[in-house]
Amino acid sequence: MEAFAVPDLPEIEEGDDIGALVAERVDLREDDVVLVASTVVSKAEGRAYDLDDFPPGPRAREIAARITEIAGDEEERDPRFAQAVLEESNELLMEAPFLLTETRFGHVGVNAGIDRSNTGGADLLLLPRRPSESAARIRDSLPVDAPVVVTDTSGRPFRHGQVGVALGWDGVPASRDWRGETDRDGHELEVTVESVVDELAATANLVTGEGDDGTPVVVVRDWAFGDHEGSENLFREVQGDFVREALRGWEFDG
Amino acid sequence: MEAFAVPDLPEIEEGDDIGALVAERVDLREDDVVLVASTVVSKAEGRAYDLDDFPPGPRAREIAARITEIAGDEEERDPRFAQAVLEESNELLMEAPFLLTETRFGHVGVNAGIDRSNTGGADLLLLPRRPSESAARIRDSLPVDAPVVVTDTSGRPFRHGQVGVALGWDGVPASRDWRGETDRDGHELEVTVESVVDELAATANLVTGEGDDGTPVVVVRDWAFGDHEGSENLFREVQGDFVREALRGWEFDG
Repeated sequence: MEAFAVPDLPEIEEGDDIGALVAERVDLREDDVVLVASTVVSKAEGRAYDLDDFPPGPRAREIAARITEIAGDEEERDPRFAQAVLEESNELLMEAPFLLTETRFGHVGVNAGIDRSNTGGADLLLLPRRPSESAARIRDSLPVDAPVVVTDTSGRPFRHGQVGVALGWDGVPASRDWRGETDRDGHELEVTVESVVDELAATANLVTGEGDDGTPVVVVRDWAFGDHEGSENLFREVQGDFVREALRGWEFDG
Repeated sequence: MEAFAVPDLPEIEEGDDIGALVAERVDLREDDVVLVASTVVSKAEGRAYDLDDFPPGPRAREIAARITEIAGDEEERDPRFAQAVLEESNELLMEAPFLLTETRFGHVGVNAGIDRSNTGGADLLLLPRRPSESAARIRDSLPVDAPVVVTDTSGRPFRHGQVGVALGWDGVPASRDWRGETDRDGHELEVTVESVVDELAATANLVTGEGDDGTPVVVVRDWAFGDHEGSENLFREVQGDFVREALRGWEFDG
């Protein structure tokens, strides 16, 4: 398996055809996986906004006041920012000391994944509205049949630091399902579902790093999903997500 | 960057020199990253046990009884298994419907990462006692200076499925620290710490998959940590880990 960044991409702007820009620079092969950072997908889709686009309601004001009290960073204290996060979210899992929410497409992340650096001049860059649909559109514009994954970076409980994760995907299942398969001793495997799109996103992030440096697209070559069942679930159902349940009953008091 | 499985490794047994076995099969280059599945590290280190090695105390009996009530899997209902998990753990974060603990070396995982498939004939395969020390020993036995990462797979809150993660590492920092670095517009980056050892482990797991199929060691070639600050933290401190705090106050009642 090989992974490399697509060279010499221009700064992506609203309306750009990311698939065409990639295909002009790489001789794509069938089954190459094309991993696209959500920042450039958002830019192409016109998801840049100014803070003034989000006049805050009472709940956003309340959240921002609470975060101000705790001393969140400058942007987090702005009720317009809280309003933007609320509008992008299905559910708030934590309101303080920072906003942890489930986005409208199911991903759980801090501040609904809204970016405030590398926004191309706007105040805010929202995540793509439906990243799997974005992946499908980019895939359609490629000259060969290659899976596409829209990626972001995300922190996680229990472990320091961020890693690359998938937000949307098309042309590859989210996970390999090993249920019923056995190990070398003939015992059924305990790990039953492997989230390959997240692992692909982690691989892409290793190659590009966070600065992007103009390399927001990575190609993974000579990797095969293999002869396994696939699953399209990446985001946990609320039912059985005990951490989410615990957070619902928790209040920051630090 | 390239990633490939080390071919034709024998079944690893207690006392085996994993570094030597790898070096016989791959012409390792300086700065290749060698990723070794914790299962084979555990086997080489004699971490296979029988359930009878863990005579259960009252707490293990209580936990197993609770899990039996909820209908955990067969092994989880055995108080000897609960005892083994307790002995491998610093802290229990959840006791039901399954045991989620912090292992003695800081990793948070289900059942303290104790394996019950691919154990090489024993009932249980415990994680390496100190995986970063294991990584250092394997690194010392390589003919070139190449970083070593000991890997496992792990589930995570909010997201379905498991991904490859690092348990121990030597010769590469756990994370790249981007603090103070800026994006193309000159804004300071929001993501400040990238957990590269976890991303390397995810890459390795993409190549091997879960069945292992006799490929528990992966080499990542032509990847560079780059000119960044490094950090040795991978496991979060209790202080500031809000999910852990929330779990401490939570009780399963399903």
